[in-house]
Amino acid sequence: MLKIAPSLMCTDLGNVEKDIKELDEAGIDLYHIDIMDGTFVPNFTLGPDFVKTVRELTDKPLDIHIMAEKPERFIDLFHQAGSDMIAIHAETTNNLQGTLTKIQDLGMKAGVAINPSTPLDVLDYVYNVIDYVVIMTVNPGFAGQTFIPEMYDKIANLKAEITNRNLNIEIMVDGNIGKDTIPKSKEKGATIFVGGTSSVYKSGLSLTENVKNTRNLLNGGE
Amino acid sequence: MLKIAPSLMCTDLGNVEKDIKELDEAGIDLYHIDIMDGTFVPNFTLGPDFVKTVRELTDKPLDIHIMAEKPERFIDLFHQAGSDMIAIHAETTNNLQGTLTKIQDLGMKAGVAINPSTPLDVLDYVYNVIDYVVIMTVNPGFAGQTFIPEMYDKIANLKAEITNRNLNIEIMVDGNIGKDTIPKSKEKGATIFVGGTSSVYKSGLSLTENVKNTRNLLNGGE
Amino acid sequence: MLKIAPSLMCTDLGNVEKDIKELDEAGIDLYHIDIMDGTFVPNFTLGPDFVKTVRELTDKPLDIHIMAEKPERFIDLFHQAGSDMIAIHAETTNNLQGTLTKIQDLGMKAGVAINPSTPLDVLDYVYNVIDYVVIMTVNPGFAGQTFIPEMYDKIANLKAEITNRNLNIEIMVDGNIGKDTIPKSKEKGATIFVGGTSSVYKSGLSLTENVKNTRNLLNGGE
Amino acid sequence: MLKIAPSLMCTDLGNVEKDIKELDEAGIDLYHIDIMDGTFVPNFTLGPDFVKTVRELTDKPLDIHIMAEKPERFIDLFHQAGSDMIAIHAETTNNLQGTLTKIQDLGMKAGVAINPSTPLDVLDYVYNVIDYVVIMTVNPGFAGQTFIPEMYDKIANLKAEITNRNLNIEIMVDGNIGKDTIPKSKEKGATIFVGGTSSVYKSGLSLTENVKNTRNLLNGGE
Amino acid sequence: MLKIAPSLMCTDLGNVEKDIKELDEAGIDLYHIDIMDGTFVPNFTLGPDFVKTVRELTDKPLDIHIMAEKPERFIDLFHQAGSDMIAIHAETTNNLQGTLTKIQDLGMKAGVAINPSTPLDVLDYVYNVIDYVVIMTVNPGFAGQTFIPEMYDKIANLKAEITNRNLNIEIMVDGNIGKDTIPKSKEKGATIFVGGTSSVYKSGLSLTENVKNTRNLLNGGE
Amino acid sequence: MLKIAPSLMCTDLGNVEKDIKELDEAGIDLYHIDIMDGTFVPNFTLGPDFVKTVRELTDKPLDIHIMAEKPERFIDLFHQAGSDMIAIHAETTNNLQGTLTKIQDLGMKAGVAINPSTPLDVLDYVYNVIDYVVIMTVNPGFAGQTFIPEMYDKIANLKAEITNRNLNIEIMVDGNIGKDTIPKSKEKGATIFVGGTSSVYKSGLSLTENVKNTRNLLNGGE
Repeated sequence: MLKIAPSLMCTDLGNVEKDIKELDEAGIDLYHIDIMDGTFVPNFTLGPDFVKTVRELTDKPLDIHIMAEKPERFIDLFHQAGSDMIAIHAETTNNLQGTLTKIQDLGMKAGVAINPSTPLDVLDYVYNVIDYVVIMTVNPGFAGQTFIPEMYDKIANLKAEITNRNLNIEIMVDGNIGKDTIPKSKEKGATIFVGGTSSVYKSGLSLTENVKNTRNLLNGGE
Repeated sequence: MLKIAPSLMCTDLGNVEKDIKELDEAGIDLYHIDIMDGTFVPNFTLGPDFVKTVRELTDKPLDIHIMAEKPERFIDLFHQAGSDMIAIHAETTNNLQGTLTKIQDLGMKAGVAINPSTPLDVLDYVYNVIDYVVIMTVNPGFAGQTFIPEMYDKIANLKAEITNRNLNIEIMVDGNIGKDTIPKSKEKGATIFVGGTSSVYKSGLSLTENVKNTRNLLNGGE
Repeated sequence: MLKIAPSLMCTDLGNVEKDIKELDEAGIDLYHIDIMDGTFVPNFTLGPDFVKTVRELTDKPLDIHIMAEKPERFIDLFHQAGSDMIAIHAETTNNLQGTLTKIQDLGMKAGVAINPSTPLDVLDYVYNVIDYVVIMTVNPGFAGQTFIPEMYDKIANLKAEITNRNLNIEIMVDGNIGKDTIPKSKEKGATIFVGGTSSVYKSGLSLTENVKNTRNLLNGGE
Repeated sequence: MLKIAPSLMCTDLGNVEKDIKELDEAGIDLYHIDIMDGTFVPNFTLGPDFVKTVRELTDKPLDIHIMAEKPERFIDLFHQAGSDMIAIHAETTNNLQGTLTKIQDLGMKAGVAINPSTPLDVLDYVYNVIDYVVIMTVNPGFAGQTFIPEMYDKIANLKAEITNRNLNIEIMVDGNIGKDTIPKSKEKGATIFVGGTSSVYKSGLSLTENVKNTRNLLNGGE
Repeated sequence: MLKIAPSLMCTDLGNVEKDIKELDEAGIDLYHIDIMDGTFVPNFTLGPDFVKTVRELTDKPLDIHIMAEKPERFIDLFHQAGSDMIAIHAETTNNLQGTLTKIQDLGMKAGVAINPSTPLDVLDYVYNVIDYVVIMTVNPGFAGQTFIPEMYDKIANLKAEITNRNLNIEIMVDGNIGKDTIPKSKEKGATIFVGGTSSVYKSGLSLTENVKNTRNLLNGGE
Repeated sequence: MLKIAPSLMCTDLGNVEKDIKELDEAGIDLYHIDIMDGTFVPNFTLGPDFVKTVRELTDKPLDIHIMAEKPERFIDLFHQAGSDMIAIHAETTNNLQGTLTKIQDLGMKAGVAINPSTPLDVLDYVYNVIDYVVIMTVNPGFAGQTFIPEMYDKIANLKAEITNRNLNIEIMVDGNIGKDTIPKSKEKGATIFVGGTSSVYKSGLSLTENVKNTRNLLNGGE
C-alpha cells in the first residue's frame, strides 16, 4: 500500500488542530515530523511538545525524523511524547545498530534516513533491524528544494537490495515529492511519500484537494 | 514599565492563532519564543517557521531566546523570520560582543541570557551593547521546574551593576515565574517576566484570566 | 576534622583489595577515584566497574572525581556503581547548578573541581548546592607534577568566601600533596587531602607508614 | 592457531595479579584491555597505568582496544605503557591509514575495530597495514550484551576478502563470545576470541576451568 | 591533457610573486593552495588573503584544497578571494551533495578530496556534481611523506567507475608526486598532478627546470 | 619601551621578504603572526611554514597569536618553526596554566589573548606565568574592524591589576591600532602595538613612512 505522510513543518503552525482534522478526514496515512538541531542541518523546527500536541489530535501514526547529531540521546524523549516511528540518520551515530534496536524494543518502528550523498552500504549490516528507510531526495534543512535525480537510482538500488534479502522494509522518500517526482519514485520502489509544499501543502488548493490529487498520483493518475 | 512575555512553548501548539489573539487582547507586552538545539539544552522546541507564523498573527514584539551552541550562526535566520529581540547565551559563544553588535546593527534589541550558575562578570565588557539580560531562574530545557532562590541575589547584583553604570538595560526573568516569585523578582529589579505554566499558562484558568492575574501581581497585588 | 583521601589511581592496580584493606586499617577517611575521558585531560584511568569493585571492599566513602566533558551524562552511572561523593569540573558543563542538585538529590555529596587557572567566581551562584570544592593544585591528567604556588591564595580566597557566606563547605586539595604542601594548604583552609605519590603512595615506605606520616603532618607534625 | 584473549575489564579488579597468574597458567594467549572515553562509548574502564601494571605481571601479549574519538592522540601513551597490539575504531579517525602505520612503525601489531553497523568497505584501502580486525559482535560499551547474528556474515565476508587478497590478517571477535557463538564464529573465520562473562569469566567456575572449557570449544568440543 | 599544479605551500613564501612569475612562464597549468584547520589535519598553512594575493599575480586557475571540518562554512570566503576550483573532503561534511552543487552554482569547478583510507563508495551518488576527484596519495597535513602504493589501485578503480558512467571527471593526485610515482599514476588514470617537493619544488634545481622535468615525465620521458 | 609589532597577515604576501627587510630597517620591534583555525575565528591565515620563512629573514622576535581551539596541540609546532613568543586565547583551553608554563619552559615568552567580551578574572591565577597579555580591541578574525571603546577600560583595569601585583607583564593591543587609538591605549597602559591597516599598513604611504609615523605617535606626536 502506498502511503501519504504530510510533513507537519509545512502545515499552518497557527492552526495545527484544524489542519490535522482536515488531513485526517482527507485520508492521509501517517504524519511526518521533522526535528532539527541546528548543527546536522542549519535550521530548527519542532520538538517533543509539538509531538505531544499532535498525539492528542489524531490516531494516525506519528513518524519522527530526527535530524540531529547523536540521536541516541533523544529516543526516550520522543517515545514518551507519543511517537510510533522514529527515523535516525546513519550519518549521525556510531551506534546505529543499537539505536535502531532500542527504537524497536520500545515498540516503535525503526527507520534509517540517509542524505543524498550517503552510499547505501551504511545499511549492509542493519537491514534486519530496520522497518523503513528514508531516502532524502533533497539535502535536508529547508523546504522548497529540488529533487536530486540520482536519487531515483538510489531508490532502485535499495529496493533491489531489500528484495534480494527477502525483507519487508518500506522506502520513504522525503523532499520535493509531487507531480513531477511521485511516478518515478513509485516505479523505483518508494511506498511512503512525505508530503510538503509540492503535494499536500501546494499553495492555492485546500489540503483536502491536495491529498486527493496526491492520492490520485499514487494510484497512477496524473 | 513591567512587561509580561508569554512563553509560546507553553501555549496550545494546536491552536496558536487562537491563543495569540486572546493573549494580544488580554494585553501582554511581547512574546518569548524558545529555540533549543538538543545539545546546549537536551530538548527541542520551535524554529524560524514558527516565528514567521507568529509574526503574521500579531504586532507585538517577538523575543527569540536562542538556547544553542554558537548562536552567531542563527542571527540572520531569526532576523529574517521576523524577530524584534534576540537573546543569546553567554555560555555558547566566543564572540559575544560581535554577535550582540550584529543583532543591534540589524535593528533588533540584543539580549544576553545566562544560566543559573553563570557569574555576572561575563557581562563586564559588553554592557554597552546589551538591551536586556535574561536571568535564567531555572536551568533551561524543560517547563515546570522550581525557581532557584540564589537568583534573587543575581537579579539584585545585576540591577546594582546597571544602575552603577547609569545604563538603561532591562532585566528579564525566565523560569517558574508566578505568584511565589514575581513580587521578589520585581523588588530586586526584574522588569520583563516570562510567563509559563506558573502564570500565563496556569492550568484551570483562561489565558485572559491568567494575564489579568499576572498583571495584578506585577502591580503589587496578590 | 582533617581527612586523608588516597587517590586509587596511584594504588597497586594488581592488588587493590590488599591495598584497600591496609589503607582501611591505617585509618584513611575516604577514597578518591579519578575518572578521565582523554579529552578534558589527555589520559584514561578507571571507571564504574572499578568503583563497584572498591565498593565491595570497603565501607569508607567513595569520592569520584570526574574529569570529563559534560559530566551530567555520567552521574547515574557512578551513582549506581556505589559513589558517596561526586565532584564535577566547573569547566566541563553549562548546567553546573542542575548537575550538582542532581548529585545531591541522589543522596550523594556534590563537589565542584576547578583547574589551576579557573577563577573562583564560577562558584558565585552555586555555593548553596556545593558540599565540597576540589582545588586542583596541579593541572589534572597525570601523577607526579609540582604544586602550583598560586593555589595557596586560591585556597585562602575560597575559605574566606565560604566563611563570609557562613556555609559549611569543605575544601579538598588534589595534586602533589605531601610534606612540602600540607602545612600551608591546611593553614589556608584545606580539610581534605588527596593522597598520591607525595604522601600515601610515597615509595620506599609501606602504606601504613605513609598514612601514619601523613596523619602526623595533618596534626601539625613534620 | 585459535587464541583466547581474556577481557581484563571483566576480571576481579581487586585482585588482578592473582587472576593474571591463574590465566597465564591456564594457557590463555593474550590479554585484551578495553579503553573507553565516555563519548564514543558511554562508559569508562581502564587506562595506561593499568596496562603498565599488567605489563609487569605477565609476558603474554597485551592487546589494547581503544574505544575513543581521535585515537591517534593516544598511540604513544599506550605504547609507552607496554602494549603489543593496538586496535583503533575505523569510525573514530580520519587518518586510519596513518595511525595504523604509526602503530606498526612502533613495533606493535595494528588492528582495526568496527562496530556492528559499520560496513566492511571502510577497510578497502588499508588491508596492507592491518594485522588484525576486531569485529564487534555487540555494540561496545558494556559487558553482558547479546551477540548480533548478522555478525556471522560479516566475519565470513571479511574472511573471504582476506583470502581473496591473499593476506595474513587475523579476525578477532569481541562480545558475548561463548558456548553459543564460538563454533559458528570459528567456522566463519574468527581466530582470536575475546573472553568475557560468557566464557573466561563465566560465573560459578574457576578461571582455570573456564579457560579449559573455552579451549575445548575452540578445539571443536561442546 | 595532463596538468601540473604546483602546491603553493611548498613555494618560497618570502617571494611568492617571483615564484609565480617563473612558474607561469614555465608553463604550469593551475595552482593548488592547501587550507588546513588544525583539526582535520594537525597543521595550518594559508588562507583567503593569500588566495587574493595570488589572484592578482596570475591568470592561471586557482584550485583550493580545503582540509577543514564542515567546509560548507568556507565556500563563499574562498569564492570571494578568487578561487576557480574548490575541493572539499568527503570525510568532513554531511552535506557533500549540496556543497558541491553550491560550488558549481557559484561558477567554480567542484572537487572531492578523499584520504588514503577512504573507500570510493562515498562518491556513489555525487558523481554527477563532481568536476574532479583529489586522490590523497599520502595522509594530508605535511609535505615530505611517502606515496602509499595502494593508491594506484584506488586511482584505477576510480578511473574505471568514471569511464563506466561515461562521465568527464578529472583525477588529481596529491602527495609525493614525482619521478617515482608519476608514470604509474598517469597510467592508472590521473590527469592532474600536484607538484610539491618531489617535482616542482625539488631542491637543487630551478622552478623552471623542475617544471620542464615534470612535464617531460608527464609526456612519458624519464 | 613602547613597541611596534607589524601584523604580517596585512603585509604584501607576494613579497614578504622585501617587506620584512623594509620593516626591519624602519625599526619595528617584533613581528606579529596570526594563526586561525576556521572555528574559533571564521577565517584562515598563515601557518608554521610561514613562520619558518620569516625566521630566516629577520632576527626580530616572532610573536605567534594562536586563534585556535585547544592551542596546547600546537605549541611544539610553532616552537620548532622559530617562535619567540606565543599567545594563546584564554577562551580556548582548559589547561591555561599548564600551556603557558610549557611555552615558558621551551624558552619562549608566554602570552594570553582575550576577546573583547572576556572578563579579566580569567587571569586571576595565572599572572605569575604570563609575560604579556593581548587585549583584542576588535573581535578577531578579519582586518579592518573598529576599535571597541570599552577596551580602554579593560586596558586600564589590567594595568592596575599588574601594578597592584607588582609584576612585569606587558600589555599588547591588537585591532584597529592607529592614530585614533594609540594615544589613549598608551595612556591606559599598553606597551606593544600590533600594526595593521590603521598604522604600519596604512595605504598610500610606504612601510617606512608608516613605521615612522607610528613611532611618532608612540612618542606622543600626532
